[in-house]
Amino acid sequence: MRQEIITLNEERNVTLTAYLQEVEGEFGFARRPAMVVIPGGGYSMCSDREADPVADAYLREGYQAFVLRYSVGEFKTWPNPMEDYEQAMAMIEDRSEEWHIDKGRINIVGFSAGGHLSACAATLAEHKPAAAVLVYPAIEEEIVDMCQPGMPYPYREVTKDTSPCFLAACRDDRTVDIKSTLLMETALNENGIAFESHIYSYGGHGFSTGEDWVVTNSLSERVKDWVPDSIGWLSELQGKLTYKGFTEPTIEPSMNADGAPVLSLNCTVIHLRKQKGEAETLLAPLFEGINKVAEERGYEPETLYYAIRNNTGREILEMIQVDQDTIKALDSALHKLVNVKLPQEEKSNEKAGI
Amino acid sequence: MRQEIITLNEERNVTLTAYLQEVEGEFGFARRPAMVVIPGGGYSMCSDREADPVADAYLREGYQAFVLRYSVGEFKTWPNPMEDYEQAMAMIEDRSEEWHIDKGRINIVGFSAGGHLSACAATLAEHKPAAAVLVYPAIEEEIVDMCQPGMPYPYREVTKDTSPCFLAACRDDRTVDIKSTLLMETALNENGIAFESHIYSYGGHGFSTGEDWVVTNSLSERVKDWVPDSIGWLSELQGKLTYKGFTEPTIEPSMNADGAPVLSLNCTVIHLRKQKGEAETLLAPLFEGINKVAEERGYEPETLYYAIRNNTGREILEMIQVDQDTIKALDSALHKLVNVKLPQEEKSNEKAGI
Amino acid sequence: MRQEIITLNEERNVTLTAYLQEVEGEFGFARRPAMVVIPGGGYSMCSDREADPVADAYLREGYQAFVLRYSVGEFKTWPNPMEDYEQAMAMIEDRSEEWHIDKGRINIVGFSAGGHLSACAATLAEHKPAAAVLVYPAIEEEIVDMCQPGMPYPYREVTKDTSPCFLAACRDDRTVDIKSTLLMETALNENGIAFESHIYSYGGHGFSTGEDWVVTNSLSERVKDWVPDSIGWLSELQGKLTYKGFTEPTIEPSMNADGAPVLSLNCTVIHLRKQKGEAETLLAPLFEGINKVAEERGYEPETLYYAIRNNTGREILEMIQVDQDTIKALDSALHKLVNVKLPQEEKSNEKAGI
Amino acid sequence: MRQEIITLNEERNVTLTAYLQEVEGEFGFARRPAMVVIPGGGYSMCSDREADPVADAYLREGYQAFVLRYSVGEFKTWPNPMEDYEQAMAMIEDRSEEWHIDKGRINIVGFSAGGHLSACAATLAEHKPAAAVLVYPAIEEEIVDMCQPGMPYPYREVTKDTSPCFLAACRDDRTVDIKSTLLMETALNENGIAFESHIYSYGGHGFSTGEDWVVTNSLSERVKDWVPDSIGWLSELQGKLTYKGFTEPTIEPSMNADGAPVLSLNCTVIHLRKQKGEAETLLAPLFEGINKVAEERGYEPETLYYAIRNNTGREILEMIQVDQDTIKALDSALHKLVNVKLPQEEKSNEKAGI
Repeated sequence: MRQEIITLNEERNVTLTAYLQEVEGEFGFARRPAMVVIPGGGYSMCSDREADPVADAYLREGYQAFVLRYSVGEFKTWPNPMEDYEQAMAMIEDRSEEWHIDKGRINIVGFSAGGHLSACAATLAEHKPAAAVLVYPAIEEEIVDMCQPGMPYPYREVTKDTSPCFLAACRDDRTVDIKSTLLMETALNENGIAFESHIYSYGGHGFSTGEDWVVTNSLSERVKDWVPDSIGWLSELQGKLTYKGFTEPTIEPSMNADGAPVLSLNCTVIHLRKQKGEAETLLAPLFEGINKVAEERGYEPETLYYAIRNNTGREILEMIQVDQDTIKALDSALHKLVNVKLPQEEKSNEKAGI
Repeated sequence: MRQEIITLNEERNVTLTAYLQEVEGEFGFARRPAMVVIPGGGYSMCSDREADPVADAYLREGYQAFVLRYSVGEFKTWPNPMEDYEQAMAMIEDRSEEWHIDKGRINIVGFSAGGHLSACAATLAEHKPAAAVLVYPAIEEEIVDMCQPGMPYPYREVTKDTSPCFLAACRDDRTVDIKSTLLMETALNENGIAFESHIYSYGGHGFSTGEDWVVTNSLSERVKDWVPDSIGWLSELQGKLTYKGFTEPTIEPSMNADGAPVLSLNCTVIHLRKQKGEAETLLAPLFEGINKVAEERGYEPETLYYAIRNNTGREILEMIQVDQDTIKALDSALHKLVNVKLPQEEKSNEKAGI
Repeated sequence: MRQEIITLNEERNVTLTAYLQEVEGEFGFARRPAMVVIPGGGYSMCSDREADPVADAYLREGYQAFVLRYSVGEFKTWPNPMEDYEQAMAMIEDRSEEWHIDKGRINIVGFSAGGHLSACAATLAEHKPAAAVLVYPAIEEEIVDMCQPGMPYPYREVTKDTSPCFLAACRDDRTVDIKSTLLMETALNENGIAFESHIYSYGGHGFSTGEDWVVTNSLSERVKDWVPDSIGWLSELQGKLTYKGFTEPTIEPSMNADGAPVLSLNCTVIHLRKQKGEAETLLAPLFEGINKVAEERGYEPETLYYAIRNNTGREILEMIQVDQDTIKALDSALHKLVNVKLPQEEKSNEKAGI
Repeated sequence: MRQEIITLNEERNVTLTAYLQEVEGEFGFARRPAMVVIPGGGYSMCSDREADPVADAYLREGYQAFVLRYSVGEFKTWPNPMEDYEQAMAMIEDRSEEWHIDKGRINIVGFSAGGHLSACAATLAEHKPAAAVLVYPAIEEEIVDMCQPGMPYPYREVTKDTSPCFLAACRDDRTVDIKSTLLMETALNENGIAFESHIYSYGGHGFSTGEDWVVTNSLSERVKDWVPDSIGWLSELQGKLTYKGFTEPTIEPSMNADGAPVLSLNCTVIHLRKQKGEAETLLAPLFEGINKVAEERGYEPETLYYAIRNNTGREILEMIQVDQDTIKALDSALHKLVNVKLPQEEKSNEKAGI
């Protein structure tokens, strides 16, 4: 491992510290994922407790790790911190070959004010992160304005282009009320963005990784789980780094494939039901199966269709115990058909992140 | 362990199955905590996958476990299921001595429609549970009405008297949109009710305990953590059962003690600052410490006071590194003073669960 | 779940308590694995703390669970306890269809004196368990004789037909010195029997599952890991119970396949090197690869061959980075060839459990 | 964090890489524990897979981490590697103030051949480590001689002065047979040295931390537990680093206090029973309690005394449910009495590490 400290802006005292691990040789891969740590401190400082100890945690899982010390104190005026972020991400992208980084797997983790900056990055930045981990982030109007007026309220900026987010906070946070986290969850859900969220019983504000040597207050023993859980989530989204390179991702970022270019069993029942022509023929057994269930259980078919309208075709076929080979064959056949987007779906598709 | 199956309502086919473990003898305690499992099934059935496997999980942690099979199908008309619940809880309370149960530690865990019933119990029941674990619960209007019109929407019923809640769901739940969970979280937070919440990346609906032998669909490996996490949360709230009886709880259900009969360092800064007389004298060193920090870091004192207004006195003293003995002595002295509730606080106290 | 208490021997007060879970219906499998719990108590009693709490732990993982209360006190004379065991196992096998148990997956877990009985069962019984979990077992002469003279010392009875064993104990056990566990490990290793073993820093004797409500003394927080670890180990050995039945096992009980009826890449290098004819031709690239490594790294070939003699062909091909398709093709080709057992190997094969 | 690479011996290409974390400032402590990583490679190389990834794991837990690249290949002749070790440890001790290291908490972790070097360090070095973590170490004659003849067989060198050891290996290690680990366990137990040991079902040789990005072969999912388990064990032995410094240790390195300068309830029953004078008077209630148990349960007293002879007084008092205050008072009173070592105990004390 080697360390590099890069001054991004001398006047504003902005630095990027890189911790870079080896590839190839005894390791069977050429690129690693990256994690950029963005400490908190109310935009008046960058906390050491939310810097290196966090970088250590991702290094240990194989990441190239960075700590961004952005503009704070007298230099905090927005959009200075955001400019620092963009500059750091541009540099990491530019030097990704030299630094053995997979460009599609550059992630960020931010705390408190750094969580605000990270949430702005996930929603508004030119260089969006592959995913953002937001730990007790400042999101809603009151707390953001208390840091300094004039900055964005990230929950209002969430769109279908926002990066996937992982959220962690404690219910008894008396510094940044978890209303911030709750508004962000809701905005992500409404826009169909992949996310995971953990709100722990107690632990207050500023717990960083939650390790005994880092944390200054008493806290639930579950709080420190956010670190391995965030790493597990990133592995699901982006594949896991193994000796032979990355595994396949296991999460679909979108809730369904209604907006994809071709049809598939990841489309919703409501969407599949509207298909005509060859698709209609292929899907006939699916709808016969549903009708049969309705009959057996004494439901009005339309009541059942309404209840399962947002389920994917695949989910329904698995529920009615169709074997995997048949499911696979049907899915492959659908992949050959163009997915005609139907005008009346526009609205209901919003949530699907299309 | 012995099993007892009690018919609560023969006509409606309502039963309570009890799994009862020993006390005393080789065990050094006389009472156990209890967990009542309330399975889901859209009020049309009670799922076996959400019954015994869940009871097993709490038995293993020392709980007396129950499965409530409530009115479903033709008998589901509200408030039948709620009546069944009240009847079951009344019986458990009545027989708590015979069944070696601590009356103050009778909890419930409900799934989907059973999560709806559990959330109604936590908000509206006469026999409120000590705590409620809500797993992919049906909470908001659309999904509740789909089960059957005329039932309460639990998030609207949350008050300062609601039981503490633990929530678990998957972000890709296409059967019960997690909007249900998000609305419940928000209502709990606004009413100052102790809660914990986990929204996992993927796992759909109906995963029960998430164990391989119980779950029918693919899911994140973190989903099954809700079981031990709920048990950890209950131990924090109610103390942990040990060989020698229960330990002390570690969570304060309220966010602060502004509404308690006597003063303490668990009151907020804003509340403590308004105290007069002896309290004012005792608290002088606290406010001097805050003023000194403001001076050192170049803040306007009132800006700092605003930022920390919801923090407790204890949190601030710990942040400014006052030693624990001094903190303890000050807290004891405050305990001797009546806490005069100040009229202008009424509104801002709502969140504090007072 | 239902409970059945069977008196196996009225005079000696021997009982088998069965905790039986459902299959089929909402569950997609027809058979479950079984675990028979054999409590300790120095052959003078059967400890309640090592009975139901242990059964609970395996129930929760999908097992059918049993508690065997065997002959103790005035009835403890050997081989009474062993007869009780044989009778219990015979009954479980006989009723495996009625009780929805997979006959090939009937396991035992024993504690202290019950660990002695379990180790005798794993080595000497007619009805050997599929696997035995031995928790602070009494194994060596001094402690066995202290319970009662005339019983077997199980480590001396280990042969290539012994059941796989999982061992757990604490280093500071002052009641049954861990010499017992160490002798058993050594005997299992020498006989090529699959095992896993955990000796924890501290926790004394009699910790049972190690849960707070069961354990009476202070202990390392790792001690309670033996329960999930034993379940993980059983899943590796016997496949894991899932909604659709058992997965494939992942552990080879034998260290290698030198004694199998056909050749494969799971045979050792020393064994493969002695093959003639078609096998020799097929294996030529393996040996060329090894020779090349020796040349590159400056080893005498025979030195290298000696160092890797007990490694399997597969391990070596993976080390020299041959791709999985080539490995698979070679292994399939070898499977078509009879494995001629070579007389001079007899001795060195002992460890291989052949 | 900063990195320093120190050349210890230019000719032999020996280096010590230091990864040094901050203290004080935002952290409430001045000293950290240290971990020196000693990679394997059969004394022909130092494996990168067993170097930085291991250092990362301990850094993340608050340790100052070092990687020692010792004499290998043409320079491997014993005692060169041991000299390198002594030189590295001497430097770390010398610079402990500059490097913010607690001198009493300098530990080592070694793999394979590095595990051999670490075991030699734990038994024979001038600068013994506070504790040694030995991962698939080469210990017994055959494998040590295969690396190079003339090196010590560490299990033969274990004495009462050996450092506490943590052992981890896989049962199916075909490169270094686990006989090495078993002999070391046995030697540690016979000499009364504190240890913990984990032998996992499968994972072969060379798994390093067991993380997916480090390990090249298939392995049990439990294998990677050795890393956090070793850290937990070190915290028990040496106290855990917290924000306010180290907690108290929870393991007694010795099995009992029979050899301590003053008496205590951590002495064994056999030792306490031999005490005369004031001690005899103080201990009378203990022996009355034991006699009463013997009477109640129908044991010959001497049989019971023999069975519990190695238990500590404290264990027995807890078993017979004497309250903690009484135990504490008795222990304090005993602390005031000189512990007269009785000649006839010499032999039986060997195991106690006295």
